[in-house]
Amino acid sequence: MIHVGFDIGGTNIKAGLVNDQGRIQVKRNVPFPRESVQACVDTLDSLIKDMLNELNLTVDDIADIGIAVPGSIDPSWSVVVNAYNLGFHDVPLKAMVSELYPGIPVALANDANAAALAELYGGAFDGKKTAVLLTLGTGVGGGMILNGKMFNGGRGNGVEIGHMTLVHNGPQCTCGNKGCFETVCAATTLVKAGKKAFEEDPNGAIAKRASGKIERVNAKTVIDCAKEGDPVAVKIFDEYLDHLSQGIASLADIFDPEVVALGGGVSLAGDFLYEPLRKLVKEKNFFKVEYEIVPAVMGNDAGTIGAAMLVSNAK
Amino acid sequence: MIHVGFDIGGTNIKAGLVNDQGRIQVKRNVPFPRESVQACVDTLDSLIKDMLNELNLTVDDIADIGIAVPGSIDPSWSVVVNAYNLGFHDVPLKAMVSELYPGIPVALANDANAAALAELYGGAFDGKKTAVLLTLGTGVGGGMILNGKMFNGGRGNGVEIGHMTLVHNGPQCTCGNKGCFETVCAATTLVKAGKKAFEEDPNGAIAKRASGKIERVNAKTVIDCAKEGDPVAVKIFDEYLDHLSQGIASLADIFDPEVVALGGGVSLAGDFLYEPLRKLVKEKNFFKVEYEIVPAVMGNDAGTIGAAMLVSNAK
Repeated sequence: MIHVGFDIGGTNIKAGLVNDQGRIQVKRNVPFPRESVQACVDTLDSLIKDMLNELNLTVDDIADIGIAVPGSIDPSWSVVVNAYNLGFHDVPLKAMVSELYPGIPVALANDANAAALAELYGGAFDGKKTAVLLTLGTGVGGGMILNGKMFNGGRGNGVEIGHMTLVHNGPQCTCGNKGCFETVCAATTLVKAGKKAFEEDPNGAIAKRASGKIERVNAKTVIDCAKEGDPVAVKIFDEYLDHLSQGIASLADIFDPEVVALGGGVSLAGDFLYEPLRKLVKEKNFFKVEYEIVPAVMGNDAGTIGAAMLVSNAK
Repeated sequence: MIHVGFDIGGTNIKAGLVNDQGRIQVKRNVPFPRESVQACVDTLDSLIKDMLNELNLTVDDIADIGIAVPGSIDPSWSVVVNAYNLGFHDVPLKAMVSELYPGIPVALANDANAAALAELYGGAFDGKKTAVLLTLGTGVGGGMILNGKMFNGGRGNGVEIGHMTLVHNGPQCTCGNKGCFETVCAATTLVKAGKKAFEEDPNGAIAKRASGKIERVNAKTVIDCAKEGDPVAVKIFDEYLDHLSQGIASLADIFDPEVVALGGGVSLAGDFLYEPLRKLVKEKNFFKVEYEIVPAVMGNDAGTIGAAMLVSNAK
């Protein structure tokens, strides 16, 4: 039996057939059809048939189907409540797919939650019961493993770690609140501060590394300059670390997780990030113990694998 | 079979024999013997014998023994790592009690965690799987129910919700960190602000209600003045609500709990507290849904009942 996983994004749909161990056997990556929900469902359908064909399998070999979307899911994992990047609002995606594959269990999940689940299968959470994934990107996405299972909130509304408050009355967040974790720990934070530094000193290290083009300043620009010791970049990075360690220490006080994994571009910064981060989190958590903080490992396949394992993990 | 529960505090030891439904059948309340750990264990021993006697039971009727302490417990629920109010440091309390009652399971827990567990048995968490208890007292104690069981942290270090950060670089906390939840939401916050208001206006409503004696200002003084519309007290209470709702909204974003219960003196303030609190939490949580926020109901018996149910709940 094989598990079907889809990771639907605003640009592409990733698809995969995944075995019981969470390993992708065949995968696809096609453009997301923006014209209609039905077009999207049709695409999912042809992807399934195409992948089955490649492995010489039939519909009878499908154990279950999981779909990750960048948005919120209803508590029964059946309806996409809001996925702004897809233009999906109150879309009964489970029912639409189930109609094509009657008798096969289908489940939906938020993509950050699915990514956390994927790490359980040979990734950063292998063998763990309590783990937290933070994706440091445009925002801060989060997913949690509790008791060895993907946690989707006690009422099924989801998990939005990136929106816990870290700075009361701090920077405005897109969610309407202020000072959310993601307002100070998204990769965007580094980009903004880097661009500000560029403007303040067009001959500085950050401006030079961005070849004098402010639109080229990204999180890596700032981190690379900090690695080379540029005091402006070091200051930006230290402030970022201060906030990130504070957020992780808060999660440690609440969950005492076996492992915290970081995803997104920032997470690739190596020891330059992880060594001071582990030290700061140890100083700041209530228990004063060291926590395992590591890069997430499933990368681009995380959403597909997590989606594929949704139904079996929930059992 | 009966469950033995102890709630050891710096002043008193509370004890009870509790049935499978979490109902106390007999209870005791005696002074905490400060002279030595052995004196404490001797007291527990005589309390057990005395209570068994009252119910015409014998040692053979004991299912298990649980002990709640105001401090940290090792991951195996066997050793009191630190309980400052008791003067207990690295005390192998489980082994000491087990020696007297061989063959009977013994477990230790932090008292806030035990209090949360107690609410599962006919209290605020009855029938719930995911719930959070916040005790608003000298600090902010916290306990969690996840998947229907008391959660003691993924690594067993515990749960210290009161120390998650709410105000980055905010007020100094006793834990060494700054801006912890408890620095702005403990009952102490209201007391401090009330005393400051008293000093600033010795003829104001707060001073009058405290009969002109600053040492009489407590959280209730401030809340009562706010209820009567005194603008100074209203401002203090509104700021307190702002922080408390922010903290609960953060927990909602992370756990999406079925219910949040509040304990401690502040929790008795009635609709004056709960109505605006529910409204603010709804506005501030990511999902914009209303959460059930209610007073804890187990009161003084919470520690005893939670302790008594420790072993059976963990099964």
